[in-house]
Amino acid sequence: MSKGRLEAFSDGVIAVLITIMVLELKVPHGTGWTTVEPLGPVLLTYVLSFVFLGIYWNNHHHMFHTVDRINGSILWANHHLLFWLSLVPVTTGWMGENHFAPLPTAVYGAVLLMSGVAFLILERTIIRHQGPHSKLKAAVGKDIKGKLSAALYIIAIPLAFVNEFIADAIYVGVVLMWLVPDRRIESTLGR
Amino acid sequence: MSKGRLEAFSDGVIAVLITIMVLELKVPHGTGWTTVEPLGPVLLTYVLSFVFLGIYWNNHHHMFHTVDRINGSILWANHHLLFWLSLVPVTTGWMGENHFAPLPTAVYGAVLLMSGVAFLILERTIIRHQGPHSKLKAAVGKDIKGKLSAALYIIAIPLAFVNEFIADAIYVGVVLMWLVPDRRIESTLGR
Amino acid sequence: MSKGRLEAFSDGVIAVLITIMVLELKVPHGTGWTTVEPLGPVLLTYVLSFVFLGIYWNNHHHMFHTVDRINGSILWANHHLLFWLSLVPVTTGWMGENHFAPLPTAVYGAVLLMSGVAFLILERTIIRHQGPHSKLKAAVGKDIKGKLSAALYIIAIPLAFVNEFIADAIYVGVVLMWLVPDRRIESTLGR
Amino acid sequence: MSKGRLEAFSDGVIAVLITIMVLELKVPHGTGWTTVEPLGPVLLTYVLSFVFLGIYWNNHHHMFHTVDRINGSILWANHHLLFWLSLVPVTTGWMGENHFAPLPTAVYGAVLLMSGVAFLILERTIIRHQGPHSKLKAAVGKDIKGKLSAALYIIAIPLAFVNEFIADAIYVGVVLMWLVPDRRIESTLGR
Repeated sequence: MSKGRLEAFSDGVIAVLITIMVLELKVPHGTGWTTVEPLGPVLLTYVLSFVFLGIYWNNHHHMFHTVDRINGSILWANHHLLFWLSLVPVTTGWMGENHFAPLPTAVYGAVLLMSGVAFLILERTIIRHQGPHSKLKAAVGKDIKGKLSAALYIIAIPLAFVNEFIADAIYVGVVLMWLVPDRRIESTLGR
Repeated sequence: MSKGRLEAFSDGVIAVLITIMVLELKVPHGTGWTTVEPLGPVLLTYVLSFVFLGIYWNNHHHMFHTVDRINGSILWANHHLLFWLSLVPVTTGWMGENHFAPLPTAVYGAVLLMSGVAFLILERTIIRHQGPHSKLKAAVGKDIKGKLSAALYIIAIPLAFVNEFIADAIYVGVVLMWLVPDRRIESTLGR
Repeated sequence: MSKGRLEAFSDGVIAVLITIMVLELKVPHGTGWTTVEPLGPVLLTYVLSFVFLGIYWNNHHHMFHTVDRINGSILWANHHLLFWLSLVPVTTGWMGENHFAPLPTAVYGAVLLMSGVAFLILERTIIRHQGPHSKLKAAVGKDIKGKLSAALYIIAIPLAFVNEFIADAIYVGVVLMWLVPDRRIESTLGR
Repeated sequence: MSKGRLEAFSDGVIAVLITIMVLELKVPHGTGWTTVEPLGPVLLTYVLSFVFLGIYWNNHHHMFHTVDRINGSILWANHHLLFWLSLVPVTTGWMGENHFAPLPTAVYGAVLLMSGVAFLILERTIIRHQGPHSKLKAAVGKDIKGKLSAALYIIAIPLAFVNEFIADAIYVGVVLMWLVPDRRIESTLGR
């Protein structure tokens, strides 16, 4: 099986997710500055989640660059990733609307964590399918960066109940760490 | 006519369906554990429907793997399938919100049944178009699995009025049966 | 300019339109038969609009089959068509919710009419771009069917204020007329 | 990296944006002419934003016509553009619902401005990546038109607090200026 439709389907799902998050940005009722003020945290979480989904799309794009053929396991590992990403808009809305309260912040972190874990599983599934000369394996190695992100989320989630801003700062930190595009794959492939 | 745009359009529709289901997962108002609790059944149905649509996308993907050319009848058989799939999000929301009450559970089952029937019709339409040496026919044979699923839904729907959990268990059973990817097509095509 | 992205964009827009109509099918509150009953007209209009958009996708697909290169005018004629199609979900919801009341029925017909007119404009724009040996021109001729549809909508719209069911019957009639796939293009292209 | 998936993803996002704007066109409750009247400004802003997004899609399409290879910076410059475009539906809804009140009109203008700036940044990022013989550079030159649009928005935004219709007129003017398709790229590429 070729990878074309899996890429197209994933592009479609992520494109819809990144845009329906906007529907959580409810049109304010009223026209004064005071109606806009409470939108601050909502907008901030929106930016965070937009960048987060952008990172996943980029990494997905880079990863499948190394892939020629797929199989049933890769299809399901990909659906599994899309499932966790699909929960980003609701948890974003919940956290934003409640100005980063502890429980929504922790749940948001859990969705980020599970997305990261699902990405690692997809990565490993592809590497196993590619066999001993896996191009992806050569590019990501032990994927320290991916595992470090997961570890940081695991630390952040309980901290949300201590002080939600510590958790938020860690989420932002992980996002910043990934904003640097994944040069490993670009350089391994020699372009 | 080539199959490219039909695949792209179907990918688009299923990608949107799988993501707008998320809009039924209403952002909870409040930040305590008690606001999250009633989301249990909603989340469960979401998972079930997500996997259900994932299975259809996979099977659609596999099926069109055997197709080279399409005609007008295949276009309409495909729209017919998309129509029934498009009802999955609403019925999912209705069943989840009402904690698997009998009528919503039966209606949900009816949508699953009709999707299955539409898939069988699409399969048959393609086989007829491919003629005596149909690759799809060689791959699916009599499609016992597809027909068995339909039969199980027919049994489950009235049972929803006896005890909704029997119906739900059957739906889950059918989904699990399909989680095993359709090796028939992969193996018939020899890769 | 090649046509690939215009097709992909149109596929995307129509796929989203056909699925967000589902969002007008509000999840009923309650679990008894009485909560489902008022959904009758809503479901009927949904089916009508689903088939209507399916027809447009099919005809768009057939039409661009004859196209090799596009220009700026074709891009805008295509956006113009997508604009009118984008109003189908709202007017569908309005008509369904109000059980085919005269004004919503007339407005719905106006959107169908304008979509038809936009399709004819797109057709003519492509034919002009293709020049004297236009493949599309050879396939559709004077497009009697397209013009007849427009004429029927023009008749139906005022009749909605006399008796809305006459208007509805005409809409259904036009849809049925197009359900027969556009063999002209298939046969002209010889496959 | 090839540009195929970036184009597909951008097409997906813009297709969803252009269609979810429709969800702001709430189905009116009631069936008389009076229920339709207040929709006037909502519909006007919808048309404006539809054309605005259509222009961006066209220009994006033209711009990537000159692109062969992309890199990580282009990916992020493109996400940045999509971010600002993603705010068009909410601000459109806000401005339309409040009949062009000053603050919503100014915020709408700010989103148009930032989209324009993001487009210029993307343009510059591509030109830098293409190097001294940049095809895009040859086509757009100093991009006077793009910079003029940005300047007009900067003038319009404060004027929204003086008289919102001056601002609206400027927005419409910029849109009309772009409705003429970007012949520069078509002619530079010689077709």
